[in-house]
Amino acid sequence: MGKNNLLKLPGLIDPHVHLRDPGSTEKEDFFTGTCAAVAGGYTAIIDMPNNPHPITTEEALSEKISLASRKIVCDVGFHFGASPSNYPVYKQIEAKVKGLKLYLDQTTGPLLIEDLEAILNIFQHWPGQKPILVHAEGVKVAMVLALSYLYRKPVHFCHISQKSEIELIKKAKEQGFLVTCEVTPHHLFLTQEDVKNLGGFGIMKPPLPSKRDQEALWENLAVIDLVASDHAPHTLAEKQSPQPPFGVPGLETTLPLLLTAVSEKRLTLERLVELTFLNPSRIFKIQQDPATSTEVDLQESYFIQGSELKTKCRWSPFQDWRVCGRVRRVTLRGQIVFEQGQVLVPPGFGRILY
Amino acid sequence: MGKNNLLKLPGLIDPHVHLRDPGSTEKEDFFTGTCAAVAGGYTAIIDMPNNPHPITTEEALSEKISLASRKIVCDVGFHFGASPSNYPVYKQIEAKVKGLKLYLDQTTGPLLIEDLEAILNIFQHWPGQKPILVHAEGVKVAMVLALSYLYRKPVHFCHISQKSEIELIKKAKEQGFLVTCEVTPHHLFLTQEDVKNLGGFGIMKPPLPSKRDQEALWENLAVIDLVASDHAPHTLAEKQSPQPPFGVPGLETTLPLLLTAVSEKRLTLERLVELTFLNPSRIFKIQQDPATSTEVDLQESYFIQGSELKTKCRWSPFQDWRVCGRVRRVTLRGQIVFEQGQVLVPPGFGRILY
Repeated sequence: MGKNNLLKLPGLIDPHVHLRDPGSTEKEDFFTGTCAAVAGGYTAIIDMPNNPHPITTEEALSEKISLASRKIVCDVGFHFGASPSNYPVYKQIEAKVKGLKLYLDQTTGPLLIEDLEAILNIFQHWPGQKPILVHAEGVKVAMVLALSYLYRKPVHFCHISQKSEIELIKKAKEQGFLVTCEVTPHHLFLTQEDVKNLGGFGIMKPPLPSKRDQEALWENLAVIDLVASDHAPHTLAEKQSPQPPFGVPGLETTLPLLLTAVSEKRLTLERLVELTFLNPSRIFKIQQDPATSTEVDLQESYFIQGSELKTKCRWSPFQDWRVCGRVRRVTLRGQIVFEQGQVLVPPGFGRILY
Repeated sequence: MGKNNLLKLPGLIDPHVHLRDPGSTEKEDFFTGTCAAVAGGYTAIIDMPNNPHPITTEEALSEKISLASRKIVCDVGFHFGASPSNYPVYKQIEAKVKGLKLYLDQTTGPLLIEDLEAILNIFQHWPGQKPILVHAEGVKVAMVLALSYLYRKPVHFCHISQKSEIELIKKAKEQGFLVTCEVTPHHLFLTQEDVKNLGGFGIMKPPLPSKRDQEALWENLAVIDLVASDHAPHTLAEKQSPQPPFGVPGLETTLPLLLTAVSEKRLTLERLVELTFLNPSRIFKIQQDPATSTEVDLQESYFIQGSELKTKCRWSPFQDWRVCGRVRRVTLRGQIVFEQGQVLVPPGFGRILY
């Protein structure tokens, strides 16, 4: 505990967010998205490549980095998008990104790849030892395990949501496979039962789990390397439409939800720090400046209100949930970037993570 | 060469045939199917479980064995069908079958399984060291490689048909995976170009390959363990209908096609014997009585005629192909079972292979 009974944590790291910029800035942009990040206790995040014009070329990546550098209030890295044929560019872009994202199941954007030959080309050509991040559900998890082993490439499984998936990953880890995995707070705290009440606000990929699948995630928490928000905002109007797009925002609700689980003894504080800082820092090689921290008031409980969030979409699937643990102050490289609900640094204060 | 310039081969073994009995005896039955087998030079075949009432229970297996034993003119073994939930019966049936068949892509019959949890149960519970045979295409091949490795179960890939599939299996074999694979004669000798002329007679699963995929099969012949006919007869009327079912007969055309490839120096005779006898014998543990042989006349060339075949369906996708190498005589346990176009033993002469 620091002064004023605040708990001092590292600046948290979320390696899986969708800031929607460029191309969908009605949902979020680099400024509002990074404001949401610091309000949620994060000082470093990594942005996904499934923009409407996906980040699958060197030019698109450079433009995105340039755009972000003028707008961000925390540090931001990028994952590159795998297309069926863009592997010749890997060597040029590898130093500028934190990982390669491979979409093996349907989600937002045009990046789905299902052809084995294209997938083998990706694993064969991805250089170095930065992770290949996969959106893989069900049998696709097993497929990726084989390719990680046969091509000796580290793989990070995004948003694991099923009992069979986490049990298979556990088995692979026990046998020395180079794999890591994440879960999202919505898969840890919501189930398919909640879709009845949430309507479009409960629609995401992978879908919300059954109670049995969710219990398996909690039981196998030791197998899980990190919690990522998969922050994926859409406008209120889109989510209230008959065909709501997939995804929910999460940057501002993940830490309070996890701190509440700590208060309920479902999680230790030490494990929380592993899941939100130590492991993402190690897996994605993010060195944190020592004068960086997130201070939270564990005594304060409050009700989550979408209208109070910094994210441009201003809604949450956890609306009206009572949580305990308020982010009071976030410091990055000695500078207070967030305090008492206010972002205190100008756009461009954040740095690009390479 | 034996007397009369006949080439003496072992009795050939085909571990992948569909004799359609019981349930679809308008297409084939155990008598006509085994007559086709001996006419094609085979003395041992293994029948698949995707009957209309699939062979997924101990009772269905016992009935099929009993039915077959009264009708067969060569030796016949059986593969058991994996359903999503029948793993508790594995221990009772394992000694009666040659392998477990798992359908991971759509084909004839109701046995498709796509749920990861069901598939993990199958790999976890299949006892002993008999192969799990898989119908797996594309990414499913990679999935099965992971499960074979993680569960230490031998897997046999049926009818591999794509460049990426055979190259991935090669990579897995180089790294010591417990896997074997087969190709069919139709994937070796026909391509998707032939569908134009063949119409419904060119429709099968996996579909006929591109020229490029076919060339990759021939180039990687050293990776392939065996050639299986995937003998899958349907009636002429069915194949001429607007929605032709998947599959072609092959028991009587595989050896002549391979002998023709030998005469064209695409294959050695030694390799032919490995592909049609030595490897299937080793993989499926079939001991052959020494007084068993297939004698062929390499000098005789002829045109394949569906109307001359023993298979009940009496058509072939290789209609009018000129081949060299005529099966003259087949001997099983010292008894001539086929000579000069005639089957010389009564139904029931063949034995069940356990």
